[in-house]
Amino acid sequence: MQLSSLSHTSITHKDKKKKMGIELQNHQSHHEEASPAEEPMSRWLINTPEPPSMWQELIGYIRTNVLAKKKHKRNKTKNSSSNLVYSCLKSAFPILSWGRQYKLNLFKKDLMAGLTLASLCIPQSIGYANLAGLDPEYGLYTSVVPPLIYSTMGTSRELAIGPVAVVSLLLSSMVRDLQDPVTDPIAYRKIVFTVTFFAGAFQAIFGLFRLGFLVDFLSHAALVGFMAGAAIVIGLQQLKGLFGLTHFTNKTDVVSVLSSVFHSLHHPWQPLNFVIGSSFLIFILLARFIGKRNNKLFWIPAMAPLISVVLATLIVYLSNAESRGVKIVKHIKPGFNQLSVNQLQFKSPHLGQIAKIGLISAIIALTEAIAVGRSFATIKGYRLDGNKEMMAMGFMNIAGSLSSCYVATGSFSRTAVNFSAGCETVVSNIVMAITVMISLEVLTRFLYFTPTAILASIILSALPGLIDVSGALHIWKLDKLDFLVLIAAFFGVLFASVEIGLLLAVGISFARIMLSSIRPSIEALGRLSKTDIFGDINQYPMANKTAGLLTLRISSPLLCFANANFIRDRILNSVQEIEGEENEQEVLKENGLQVVILDMSCVMGVDTSGVFALEELHQELASNDIRLVIASPRWRVLHKLKRAKLDEKIKTENIYMTVGEAVDIYVRARSTSHELC
Amino acid sequence: MQLSSLSHTSITHKDKKKKMGIELQNHQSHHEEASPAEEPMSRWLINTPEPPSMWQELIGYIRTNVLAKKKHKRNKTKNSSSNLVYSCLKSAFPILSWGRQYKLNLFKKDLMAGLTLASLCIPQSIGYANLAGLDPEYGLYTSVVPPLIYSTMGTSRELAIGPVAVVSLLLSSMVRDLQDPVTDPIAYRKIVFTVTFFAGAFQAIFGLFRLGFLVDFLSHAALVGFMAGAAIVIGLQQLKGLFGLTHFTNKTDVVSVLSSVFHSLHHPWQPLNFVIGSSFLIFILLARFIGKRNNKLFWIPAMAPLISVVLATLIVYLSNAESRGVKIVKHIKPGFNQLSVNQLQFKSPHLGQIAKIGLISAIIALTEAIAVGRSFATIKGYRLDGNKEMMAMGFMNIAGSLSSCYVATGSFSRTAVNFSAGCETVVSNIVMAITVMISLEVLTRFLYFTPTAILASIILSALPGLIDVSGALHIWKLDKLDFLVLIAAFFGVLFASVEIGLLLAVGISFARIMLSSIRPSIEALGRLSKTDIFGDINQYPMANKTAGLLTLRISSPLLCFANANFIRDRILNSVQEIEGEENEQEVLKENGLQVVILDMSCVMGVDTSGVFALEELHQELASNDIRLVIASPRWRVLHKLKRAKLDEKIKTENIYMTVGEAVDIYVRARSTSHELC
Repeated sequence: MQLSSLSHTSITHKDKKKKMGIELQNHQSHHEEASPAEEPMSRWLINTPEPPSMWQELIGYIRTNVLAKKKHKRNKTKNSSSNLVYSCLKSAFPILSWGRQYKLNLFKKDLMAGLTLASLCIPQSIGYANLAGLDPEYGLYTSVVPPLIYSTMGTSRELAIGPVAVVSLLLSSMVRDLQDPVTDPIAYRKIVFTVTFFAGAFQAIFGLFRLGFLVDFLSHAALVGFMAGAAIVIGLQQLKGLFGLTHFTNKTDVVSVLSSVFHSLHHPWQPLNFVIGSSFLIFILLARFIGKRNNKLFWIPAMAPLISVVLATLIVYLSNAESRGVKIVKHIKPGFNQLSVNQLQFKSPHLGQIAKIGLISAIIALTEAIAVGRSFATIKGYRLDGNKEMMAMGFMNIAGSLSSCYVATGSFSRTAVNFSAGCETVVSNIVMAITVMISLEVLTRFLYFTPTAILASIILSALPGLIDVSGALHIWKLDKLDFLVLIAAFFGVLFASVEIGLLLAVGISFARIMLSSIRPSIEALGRLSKTDIFGDINQYPMANKTAGLLTLRISSPLLCFANANFIRDRILNSVQEIEGEENEQEVLKENGLQVVILDMSCVMGVDTSGVFALEELHQELASNDIRLVIASPRWRVLHKLKRAKLDEKIKTENIYMTVGEAVDIYVRARSTSHELC
Repeated sequence: MQLSSLSHTSITHKDKKKKMGIELQNHQSHHEEASPAEEPMSRWLINTPEPPSMWQELIGYIRTNVLAKKKHKRNKTKNSSSNLVYSCLKSAFPILSWGRQYKLNLFKKDLMAGLTLASLCIPQSIGYANLAGLDPEYGLYTSVVPPLIYSTMGTSRELAIGPVAVVSLLLSSMVRDLQDPVTDPIAYRKIVFTVTFFAGAFQAIFGLFRLGFLVDFLSHAALVGFMAGAAIVIGLQQLKGLFGLTHFTNKTDVVSVLSSVFHSLHHPWQPLNFVIGSSFLIFILLARFIGKRNNKLFWIPAMAPLISVVLATLIVYLSNAESRGVKIVKHIKPGFNQLSVNQLQFKSPHLGQIAKIGLISAIIALTEAIAVGRSFATIKGYRLDGNKEMMAMGFMNIAGSLSSCYVATGSFSRTAVNFSAGCETVVSNIVMAITVMISLEVLTRFLYFTPTAILASIILSALPGLIDVSGALHIWKLDKLDFLVLIAAFFGVLFASVEIGLLLAVGISFARIMLSSIRPSIEALGRLSKTDIFGDINQYPMANKTAGLLTLRISSPLLCFANANFIRDRILNSVQEIEGEENEQEVLKENGLQVVILDMSCVMGVDTSGVFALEELHQELASNDIRLVIASPRWRVLHKLKRAKLDEKIKTENIYMTVGEAVDIYVRARSTSHELC
């Protein structure tokens, strides 16, 4: 080649950097001349130390990510082993840390918040238990044990724990496929407890092995779509209670539910249910409207459901409306949570299915709780420890599954009330749990006459909060593909099932990531005038191309089996296009394309297919008298090239530290060759 | 903040680039002063045009990738429509292009190559048909129609088309689950034809929609492992023929086959089969050894199988060995391929399964053919058009399925023979097909006495070529993860099944890609002394960190839901570590960490979760009095930041064109502030 023959000609240097590069080409001949200050840049590149091997990296990863971080090494050596146990305990139970500084004035605030929370929680829990296909008391149980466990282990100060609408829907819609709750409620309940155990176990495992990233797989957009779809599905399910219907579909999709409602309305039904339900729904929505107008009146919407329950129950009891077809809750078993250890079904033939439902519930519950917890933590200016949160959620659900609870998590609506009511610590959760416990003992008899329509209207009133229209609009403005994920989750939940909605959303999200790896963009670069910066010529239309040079940047973190052929073909096509243009314009061969510079600054790794593709690229270009130059290869890439002896084939002098260096050397060599001619 | 208050103080400039950056901060005040030559770099960044929208990109992608490239626009406008049709035809049938220049001296070479090919092909085809669970004639049929179709449409000049061992094994092992070939060979055959049709249809669709990348999903490493595993499985299957066993397992894994062989050998068996098979196996292997020693004697290994068949058949015929327990092929139906259109089973209850088998066969067949074709094309110095190859393969298999053939593809062993025999064009395939056709008419009666042991030894002799030990060693040296893929494919095929082996290999390959997106590396950067280059401080230990600055580079092409939280947490952890060290060393606050520079040059896109994570990062850093600076954001990322109004929150003056610019401005502002103090 023209250029390499130049490496031994003497050149007068203008620019230090240019000199460095040329020197590299003949650094074997007069190596000693280069003073340390003028060391050629590319020699730095070639002489970099070996990157850590895969095993070293794996061990490092496990040490930093899976094992707990041991930051307090100095303390450990000083302290005794009993203190070590205490510090471990403190790490697992944050209550031991902040509990000591807990003061009376904090408790006053927490007490108020806890009582407000309980007044919202009791009717909601009964309603959600109904949604989950369980008897009302199980909702109340779920508002006792999990909040107590969470308050000792959780790191959030605002999160209000208990049953939530979406998880209740999820459970009932998926467990129903295994066991019908109407024909055999006991068997159904056993499966629900087992699912709860699995959900807790999965959550604890995620926390223990720091697999918190699994929660991230459900992107924000997917969650917005999923929640909105679930809200509509839940709302439609409530039509059963609101209209007091008896025959109702088991399916959750819109079409089945609407046709079921339509058919039922043709049969005789009791309009009184609807009158009670809708009038109290209007009352609760009005209360919420007032609360939104004036933030100080936050307790009005928080109390409204309880007031509605009390009023509606009194009306039914006094007017004896039960005899006129108003459906009532009837018997609620009084007393605290009962042990349910012996009800767990580890020998069920559906164990795989149960574990799967547990996994899905675990992820949905965690995603919701962490999203809610994180947003309130950001407002108060502290950071949530995702892994500890998962541990806390896991243990609270395991404990719950042993004490007749179903899957609990952090609820958005109740956390917002807790926050508005001025809670300071998770003590508000303890207050709430104790209040619910007392009411389980005292109030259950009173709830006998509560109309089911009122429960439907309480659930319905909570739904608008799940539909985040402004969030969806924001996503539409920002990212169309994210919006597609949202829409897929929404319509998937609405028209197919909860699982299909989730699967679609996660599938599209990952397809997008895969696509960016399979079809990376290859950008032509140009120099921004009077700088050493090379930019995408589409992004910077003022960037100058250098004649005889083609500078391309590979924008993929891996040059691997999935994209190596694509990248090679794209580069060869670009070269062919340029050569085609040159032939049309009848450019002389010596003024034509001579060098392809490959900017590999974004490529983090390369596998055997990638190395092979680079080798083929080098050969094909060489057969067209074009030189392949690699600029700014990363550590591991360079190491692989050395291993594959590709640096010898491409020649070490064709590997440069930066694109600028490579271009400068080419331009200089070219102008010198013209001078020599 | 200290720094931003500096933006309106007057500074004497030493360095042009530094001046540019400072000017950006107050470019609203004296904008007109900047001459075009001294335009601040970051203004270029901010004023870049809008990137193409998703729709524009999608349309562009379809235009360039899915629709055929229309390069000859000028010709088209000049020529008549009949010429257009002709050029389309020429594109679909390359034979129309090169056929006109075909000369007699080329034909001489092709004739020789074709005849050599046929002598190898006839015994191999019978053996592979046996492996596929079909009668011998179907292997011969498959060596007639597909090569003829391929020769008109294919772009490779060396590829020898016909049945191959791996695809035959794949077909029999998967179709066997749907239909046993022994109890109902006709039904089995119908399913095989339908699978062949689906395989062809998938291949044609891949070619038509330019989905060639699907073939890349089976990486080179996976293929090496898969082929080696398949070779061993095929070899074990041949023990049946070699020992003349009657009872044999249907499964393909090592354990079942070996135990089956072990059990069978306890029953009486005919050692004569083994004597014939193994002696001719030694003969064929010897012939191959001679051929390898002297390249001119390539025809010896090529002819050896046919010679063995002829000799063995004669021996059996003359010695009447059949009566002494030697198993023979018996009846082969004479005559050409028969139509099998009416045998395709599109109404089968297993249609989904059949289509799946078709898809797997299509991909395996294509992967093998394209790998073989590409390597020989590289030797001869031309490029294979992957999409045209897939079209050709697709149509040849569709045609095959209509004419009693099973899945055909390019065979490595026969292509090598074809190449050594000096073939010039695909005419050698035509010669081979015609020869096989003639032998179907003439030779089938002769093959009645061919012992099955000889077929087993022919297949066995082809297997060592499938086991690429040096390739595996190369992969081990180059990339441990690729080797893991290889091992997974190998042991998966060996101990479980063909499908599980493939699934494992593809799964691990993709998990690796996903992992690089989910857990991208975040590198701390330092300046290489006396340059503007910032490198990973692990790669370049001599790189200098600037006090008060933390420069981090995100090495992921997407800042998205799957990694946004991870990246945010990693950055915040790095900041906390530095602050912890500063506290230990009791560094003054004003000398402590003040700026975090985020080098986003590798981030190609950002979704809503990514934007949100950046926003949170900015807030959390701001609450610690640390400024977030974004350096060299890409086109689309910058656009998204603008859309999300994040550029206003972070402030436009904190977005820089390069890391160097950002660092320079910080250093300058800091030293000026010290001077002012």
